[in-house]
Amino acid sequence: MASIKDVAGLAGVAVGTVSRVINHSGAVKPETRRKVEEAIKRLNYIPNEIARNFKMQKSKMVALLLPTISHPFFSELAYYIEDELDREGYKLMLCNSGSKPEKELYYLDMLQQNKVAGIVGITYNDIDSSVSTDIPIVSIDRHFSKRIICVTSDNYEGGRLALRELVRAGAKKPAFIGTVIPVSSEIMKRKSGFVQEAKAMGVDYVVYEKPDPIIDEDKYYNEFFMRHDDVDGVFATNDMFAAQYIERASRRGISVPGDVKVIGYDGIQSHAYFHPVLSTIRQPVEEMARTAVKLLLGQIGGESFHQDTYCLPVMYRQGETT
Amino acid sequence: MASIKDVAGLAGVAVGTVSRVINHSGAVKPETRRKVEEAIKRLNYIPNEIARNFKMQKSKMVALLLPTISHPFFSELAYYIEDELDREGYKLMLCNSGSKPEKELYYLDMLQQNKVAGIVGITYNDIDSSVSTDIPIVSIDRHFSKRIICVTSDNYEGGRLALRELVRAGAKKPAFIGTVIPVSSEIMKRKSGFVQEAKAMGVDYVVYEKPDPIIDEDKYYNEFFMRHDDVDGVFATNDMFAAQYIERASRRGISVPGDVKVIGYDGIQSHAYFHPVLSTIRQPVEEMARTAVKLLLGQIGGESFHQDTYCLPVMYRQGETT
Repeated sequence: MASIKDVAGLAGVAVGTVSRVINHSGAVKPETRRKVEEAIKRLNYIPNEIARNFKMQKSKMVALLLPTISHPFFSELAYYIEDELDREGYKLMLCNSGSKPEKELYYLDMLQQNKVAGIVGITYNDIDSSVSTDIPIVSIDRHFSKRIICVTSDNYEGGRLALRELVRAGAKKPAFIGTVIPVSSEIMKRKSGFVQEAKAMGVDYVVYEKPDPIIDEDKYYNEFFMRHDDVDGVFATNDMFAAQYIERASRRGISVPGDVKVIGYDGIQSHAYFHPVLSTIRQPVEEMARTAVKLLLGQIGGESFHQDTYCLPVMYRQGETT
Repeated sequence: MASIKDVAGLAGVAVGTVSRVINHSGAVKPETRRKVEEAIKRLNYIPNEIARNFKMQKSKMVALLLPTISHPFFSELAYYIEDELDREGYKLMLCNSGSKPEKELYYLDMLQQNKVAGIVGITYNDIDSSVSTDIPIVSIDRHFSKRIICVTSDNYEGGRLALRELVRAGAKKPAFIGTVIPVSSEIMKRKSGFVQEAKAMGVDYVVYEKPDPIIDEDKYYNEFFMRHDDVDGVFATNDMFAAQYIERASRRGISVPGDVKVIGYDGIQSHAYFHPVLSTIRQPVEEMARTAVKLLLGQIGGESFHQDTYCLPVMYRQGETT
């Protein structure tokens, strides 16, 4: 393989000049640059970072797998993940893998082959058997059967907090509404926290769940309204569910927060231009993103972590719905 | 450099087996896989796709530069760009470059060095002198001094449409509100279309602009309300401006659409859970994304295009604000 000296020799310049051309650093006359580039081409010299990383079998790229970047929670997360990676000299590859396990498997393969240095994954697909512990992966929310570090918000505390805030706002019979997902995820603790706190406080409560995803939203909500017309508080598993519930409730003449207090989860509304401004359990998105990246880069650097789950504190944010 | 045959020889297996291990295709016994992997390591054999691409000086990666992925218009665009790239076997690198020209310059360098195959850029930074015509770049909305293909929505027609719809809704003195950006962008045509159509229809109108970005929003809107209290229609340069205007108008007791009809631009609301549902000029986001990718991959494949600007049709979407 041609060396930088060969290039310098052919171009009739100093090695330092070749280096400046390669690294786009320092001034090089256009004419000189052209000569160097021609020499690089003729000798098929491989100067770039990929080649260097490659020799070291190291990539400076991290893949982010998520259901869809068009969801506001994921796009905010992606923003901070990219920002944190950039600080550390890494680039982000983005993969929307919602209901496409084959895309996720492809990235796992890339990781096995060192084409990416690590993966941050928010995934609901059936890929458990393809995930292995000896490669750098950080999962958001989901647990795998193998030992994979998981970064999550304090869903259990979030559920407790939501119950308490609904009661404080006057609800006598609050309901949890959500779905049952087929993988083991920390987000199921939103319900457990809600239920445990209701029990601890001696509050009557309802749990309403259907298998994820909800195909027929009309059916989902109609059934809820029919079965539980005495509910006066709703803790929705996320803000979209909260917003959907409120829209459908208002069509039935149920006012929020007059008749029913509503709290969501996520905190996707970044400003108060659109209404209702949801009362919600706000996830610490930025901190989750930066923590995930730090843990991942730690793993890439050979660190091992004794803790499996990194659970970050949530906050109640009062809006117009409680 | 070691060949696949060397690896097969050292591992004591057939070349096909090595290939199956490398490509993760077909069944290989764990013990055999281990042997092959050991041989690969010992011989420092470089099997992977990056290396292959690399030899051909071709990367299968495209960089997307945008101000911030956390803005709903950009995240929707990114979703479709990734989807279209994936169909064609390309991966997406994501870069949030808002007010960080140095990040964009870094990616332009990567492109020069073939570390990425092409760039789709939505950029407002001062990078004009670093962009060159002989590398695959597609710009969204913005024009450069050199000949770079630009994909945009029909901003001029959007402006005309907005004026007509405001008038149809009863506005006698509509205003355009927006900012003046320091680069040459198609989005400035939103104003021109609005103004031309007002002139053509003989409608009295107002143009209210300040230099971008707006640092002091209070001042921006207060001045507008003070100077133009006779305005009964607003065409905002984008949906966020429309939402901001409505929020501030309502604080002053101005009702929308009762006193003032409002139309935005973009179409960032994907559902009707949050209010007001804006009347808006909807950009064909998906089509813009797929068109940008097709044009980019065409350039990467060596095609040349005679057209500079690809302008896609917009639609008026009636909401609750007209």
